[in-house]
Amino acid sequence: MLHLIVKYMWWIVPVLLLSACATPQPTLRGTGDLGVVIERATGQVQVIETSGRKSLAQVSGLGDLSHASVVFSRDGRYAYVFGRDGGLTKVDLLTATIAGRVVQAGNSIGGAVSQDGRLVVAQNYEPGGIKAFDAATLELVADVPADYGTEGKRSKVVGLADLPGNRFIYSLFDANEIRVTDLSDPKNPKTERYPAGKQPYDALVTPDGRYYIAGLFGEDGLSMLDLWQPAQGVRAILPGYGRGEQALPVYKMPHLRGWAVAAGRAYLPAIGRHEVLVVELGSWKEVARIPVKSQPVFVMARPDGREVWVNFAFPDNGWMQVIDTFTNRLVDTFQPGRAILHLEFTPKGEAVWISARDDNKVAIYDTATRRKLAELPAASPSGIFFTSRAFRTGF
Amino acid sequence: MLHLIVKYMWWIVPVLLLSACATPQPTLRGTGDLGVVIERATGQVQVIETSGRKSLAQVSGLGDLSHASVVFSRDGRYAYVFGRDGGLTKVDLLTATIAGRVVQAGNSIGGAVSQDGRLVVAQNYEPGGIKAFDAATLELVADVPADYGTEGKRSKVVGLADLPGNRFIYSLFDANEIRVTDLSDPKNPKTERYPAGKQPYDALVTPDGRYYIAGLFGEDGLSMLDLWQPAQGVRAILPGYGRGEQALPVYKMPHLRGWAVAAGRAYLPAIGRHEVLVVELGSWKEVARIPVKSQPVFVMARPDGREVWVNFAFPDNGWMQVIDTFTNRLVDTFQPGRAILHLEFTPKGEAVWISARDDNKVAIYDTATRRKLAELPAASPSGIFFTSRAFRTGF
Repeated sequence: MLHLIVKYMWWIVPVLLLSACATPQPTLRGTGDLGVVIERATGQVQVIETSGRKSLAQVSGLGDLSHASVVFSRDGRYAYVFGRDGGLTKVDLLTATIAGRVVQAGNSIGGAVSQDGRLVVAQNYEPGGIKAFDAATLELVADVPADYGTEGKRSKVVGLADLPGNRFIYSLFDANEIRVTDLSDPKNPKTERYPAGKQPYDALVTPDGRYYIAGLFGEDGLSMLDLWQPAQGVRAILPGYGRGEQALPVYKMPHLRGWAVAAGRAYLPAIGRHEVLVVELGSWKEVARIPVKSQPVFVMARPDGREVWVNFAFPDNGWMQVIDTFTNRLVDTFQPGRAILHLEFTPKGEAVWISARDDNKVAIYDTATRRKLAELPAASPSGIFFTSRAFRTGF
Repeated sequence: MLHLIVKYMWWIVPVLLLSACATPQPTLRGTGDLGVVIERATGQVQVIETSGRKSLAQVSGLGDLSHASVVFSRDGRYAYVFGRDGGLTKVDLLTATIAGRVVQAGNSIGGAVSQDGRLVVAQNYEPGGIKAFDAATLELVADVPADYGTEGKRSKVVGLADLPGNRFIYSLFDANEIRVTDLSDPKNPKTERYPAGKQPYDALVTPDGRYYIAGLFGEDGLSMLDLWQPAQGVRAILPGYGRGEQALPVYKMPHLRGWAVAAGRAYLPAIGRHEVLVVELGSWKEVARIPVKSQPVFVMARPDGREVWVNFAFPDNGWMQVIDTFTNRLVDTFQPGRAILHLEFTPKGEAVWISARDDNKVAIYDTATRRKLAELPAASPSGIFFTSRAFRTGF
């Protein structure tokens, strides 16, 4: 009997050991080459890595991911995914699990992380305003409504970006205003207000956090705020860039987020026009106007600034064009797939990942040769976001 | 008896489980907020993290770490440490162990990682040249000697930086040359040679990888190569910036590596002069000359470019000064400790880590208030390097 039990004991021990240690052990790995691809059709994100150009995992349960956007924790481990349904989901890229989720608004279009990495801030359409959450726990720590006028109206908020000093800048679509909220002390947010042009609909901040440029839907031109000289207020730049010409129907509002700042100039998509506008930083003069294939949506600078890559609105959304910023000439036109919704460069810019929604794939190109390096399957992919965004101001 | 054995079994199982699973399991964590501090006295590096401002581990056995420098793998997990003794050590930041080590030259002063992350390249004094290693295995894949003249002489190599296209740029101290080696095909390195000024001793490349500026020891001025127009060759800039004035004895050669490019201008330490030179990118005109406390060593831009922080040569190496790049005026002068050897900004610039060798500490400051946030003990700390360098060209 003793004999039997001893035999049994030595059998059960390794089994118990195995089952205890073999609970899915996430691989120890660096997070600098990780990223996520939004799969809007299925409400999932794919976790990918850019060194081996591989898909690592899928994470489900993120709600409505149409028009979703993503920012990252300062350690590069967590992605904060903002869904159109107001959901803010914290995804652990190493375990491919949801580390936290709050439904924080009725309708949200993105967010930003504070300079110190402690706050994640959402910009909301409904109810209009910004909300700050503890980046670790997702606990609400500040709610800053975008009130305007006298009747307690609240504006849709767009163009949110982080600034040095744990400040955030954003635009009020309905109130024609740019605001800067200092969240250094989240219990006492301090907001400064700057009257701006009509209906700002998106914005970018230059990589140094100095200039904030908002595109305007309600007038012909853009609004610019120099954050090193805020007392000068908002200045109108490129006023009437489309003046005297018949406006084309706008198929999709262009985006300004993409750091389309290269070689000391900003490259901006013109609304409803087949053009990319080139503006010199500082003087704010239009230095070129580059005719492109169709209405540009994203105008994104390769990290070295030597090239700007452009995608387009329907019905030309299968095309992509490349502008050389030294000559301001088109150097390539090609078709990576059907319904190109977004593109993301690797941190040092040797490759670009392009989502082709209607081909259910992400295509990866060498940026020097424009040769395709790989393709990954994805369910209606839209946004692609890499962890290197964690280190950049204004993302 | 059976009773006893069953009791015993349930006692032994948890113990076995514990001992099996408790073999030092490195913590699963992001690598975006990691870094290393060189402890030159003990030949160690400290692994640190900037979110909690903590020391995580020490790694020994790295050889002679006087004047050591560090670059990072593209995933942020590994630090490549170049020692003065020619040792190249690959340190795993997650396990705090040595993942590989080669003694690759007699005397080395640093290295760089290729755009695609596959190569780590060392710049060597003796024997003079560059060597490329597989970033995963540290296997030698290319050896490019810095031959010059007709007698098979080899020059010391300085000012190495990575460029787009898996190219590397560097200067030949003894041969008055700048060279660009294309390592896209490591078996067939292709090198272009550009005659430069006398005795280039260090260099920087602008964040976009476009302009390479080498400081000259053998003449009064600097050499500049525009990599977007390489056919124009090297141009002399700031010729004779110290002309007609008596040279001071040079206590320590200043460094040019620190991305001292801010607000469209380069901030450069003058050799043997108590000045920081300010040069406009593109026109290469001197736009200001800022008197500082002593001979500058590192002139480093805060990531937003609004401030430039300067440390000094002996006997004033306990001081630090801060220049506002908008006004080009000094805004602060303070003493963080004795023998300030290096400083490193967090990726978004909210804090700076400063090594005070003779106080055996690293001091961490809030860059907005210049208040001290924390101090960490370290044995004769010199260089401080954060993983965010992995995402930047020219580091």
